[in-house]
Amino acid sequence: MRIKRRPFLKTAIGASLATLTAKAQDAPPAGKKLGWALVGLGSLSKNQIAPALLKTQHSKLAAVVTGTPEKGVQWREQYGLAEDKVYSYENFDKIIDDPSIDVVYIVLPNSMHHEFTLRAARAGKHVFCEKPMANSAKECREMIAACEAANRQLGIGYRCQFEPHHREAIRFAREQVFGPLQHVDAGFGFAIGDPKQWRLRKDLAGGGALMDVGVYALQACRYLAGEEPLEVVALETKTDPVKFAEVDETITWSMRFPSGLTANCLTTYHFNGRDDFSAYGTKGRFGMKPCYGYKGQTGWTSDPKIPLAFPQTDHFVAEMDAFSQAILQGKPFEPSGAEGLRDLLVIEAIYRSIASGKKESI
Amino acid sequence: MRIKRRPFLKTAIGASLATLTAKAQDAPPAGKKLGWALVGLGSLSKNQIAPALLKTQHSKLAAVVTGTPEKGVQWREQYGLAEDKVYSYENFDKIIDDPSIDVVYIVLPNSMHHEFTLRAARAGKHVFCEKPMANSAKECREMIAACEAANRQLGIGYRCQFEPHHREAIRFAREQVFGPLQHVDAGFGFAIGDPKQWRLRKDLAGGGALMDVGVYALQACRYLAGEEPLEVVALETKTDPVKFAEVDETITWSMRFPSGLTANCLTTYHFNGRDDFSAYGTKGRFGMKPCYGYKGQTGWTSDPKIPLAFPQTDHFVAEMDAFSQAILQGKPFEPSGAEGLRDLLVIEAIYRSIASGKKESI
Repeated sequence: MRIKRRPFLKTAIGASLATLTAKAQDAPPAGKKLGWALVGLGSLSKNQIAPALLKTQHSKLAAVVTGTPEKGVQWREQYGLAEDKVYSYENFDKIIDDPSIDVVYIVLPNSMHHEFTLRAARAGKHVFCEKPMANSAKECREMIAACEAANRQLGIGYRCQFEPHHREAIRFAREQVFGPLQHVDAGFGFAIGDPKQWRLRKDLAGGGALMDVGVYALQACRYLAGEEPLEVVALETKTDPVKFAEVDETITWSMRFPSGLTANCLTTYHFNGRDDFSAYGTKGRFGMKPCYGYKGQTGWTSDPKIPLAFPQTDHFVAEMDAFSQAILQGKPFEPSGAEGLRDLLVIEAIYRSIASGKKESI
Repeated sequence: MRIKRRPFLKTAIGASLATLTAKAQDAPPAGKKLGWALVGLGSLSKNQIAPALLKTQHSKLAAVVTGTPEKGVQWREQYGLAEDKVYSYENFDKIIDDPSIDVVYIVLPNSMHHEFTLRAARAGKHVFCEKPMANSAKECREMIAACEAANRQLGIGYRCQFEPHHREAIRFAREQVFGPLQHVDAGFGFAIGDPKQWRLRKDLAGGGALMDVGVYALQACRYLAGEEPLEVVALETKTDPVKFAEVDETITWSMRFPSGLTANCLTTYHFNGRDDFSAYGTKGRFGMKPCYGYKGQTGWTSDPKIPLAFPQTDHFVAEMDAFSQAILQGKPFEPSGAEGLRDLLVIEAIYRSIASGKKESI
């Protein structure tokens, strides 16, 4: 699989903007809703995705897949699902015979994204997969190939690309409203709690803060840059080698892009407060803080006449309906698996740089 | 010369705080002012230092040293200097016979700091030297040795260490008001104008943005950390290889400190807007923006009950009077040459990292 450099302008952002601004004649039939099956009923599914599916126009909850039968009972009651709409991980492949399911939304620990994407594709379903797409670029490539072979779409849950502050920031960058971008600072992290959670297990999470939240800062740099980084240098620091025995606690990294743009990034599981980007152009500056959470996005710019301020939206409603619309209209969805792969290629270079102590090419 | 690791708590900050908070009985005789000779009459001397010397309590303008006779005439008229108080670079060494000069303040291009520090020390004068201290750690060591041999003090013009927002930020860090510091972001840069100026010539400036303004961001990280960085990784980017043929245009670097603290930094001669630090502790955050200029310092914290706000002060008045007071009281001044050397050791590691593409130890 060939991954092109600088694909953003034409593909990722371009296409997703196109999807969301589709003309009226491209709109799917009124009332037509695709059926979504949620795989993994953790807090993200429970508190964000399922409530969002009550508000979507082109998407509805069709089924759930869980390893915990008690959760299945709760969800049946809460969302009025029939008994045969609760699948287990074992009988998941039977969805091939369930025409009520159009899309499988994978909300599992990172290490399970690959397996369930392949199984969903084999069952003939479109796949929407949470970030990070997988634990390695190799897994990403196999997931893309599986969906291509099944002629099904593969979308990645990069919800910020559907959030209006982020979209306007991307427009600022593309249209050089503050001049060509020269530098981006971006950071996302938090003080993680429960030391027993799957996010701290390498076999389940693939990595630590970088995989889980650092990917948001990386995404922001990439979609603001509109080009792919050429090289990266990274440093890791660990204040609690017991809690973070298996995964990274805090990583800083810098990237250089073809245009000369640089980016400094931080991700951490150790302290709160980083949830921002600042973008520096030759004619001015803009940024967001808070930036990557489910709500509370707040923008700023160096020019009071050019605000970066929008009403709050539900990111999950936006991304799921965009995916459903793309399928209903037969148009390619972005951010697709190729976009998830591009992040994993950078993430792998960051880990290589930490291991080698050297600048690494992407 | 041996440079100790983690000397900050006991030396640099500790001593300079001590100097400024000296008890009344330590105060120099009322009305006693040391005579300062300014070497180099560029805009910094003209617009900042000489006006400050009209407001100092323990320091006064005693002489000027210039390579431009016309400037000497102007300065004599403006500041009422006698004819024999205007020295040239050639007859500078005659200051040995001028008891009105106690301190020589070196405000020359970086490459001349070394020579004039050695000559001033040989003339038996105390030396106050602008940042960056010199073009190399080797030069710094020779300057320190020369002043030690002459039994004269050597101070470095790190004026931010005398500015109340910075001093309070240092107190926040030392007293862990927001918990132990985990990360610092710091950046300083500007879009440089005139392509003919000495700052763009390697033989005069020693380096580019990093030497000139990056050193402020580096200083901030070091005095907030209160310890010396162990290692650094850096990236350089150049958008105008003609204008910046000899010196660096934009550099980003990351440092890791013994406590685990990390720092991400940026310096540039290419764009405006970076003039800040943000410090992240386990219990909260604080920072400054603007941060390093001659005025306009503005602080922020994550706790409205703990402000970081002070009236504006004249940094040059504060640093020169602190140096004079230290001499009058016979106490060691900080930031001294050892402190300037520590920055040059990091700066050299940053340049090594750019050249090697590797993480470099300090």
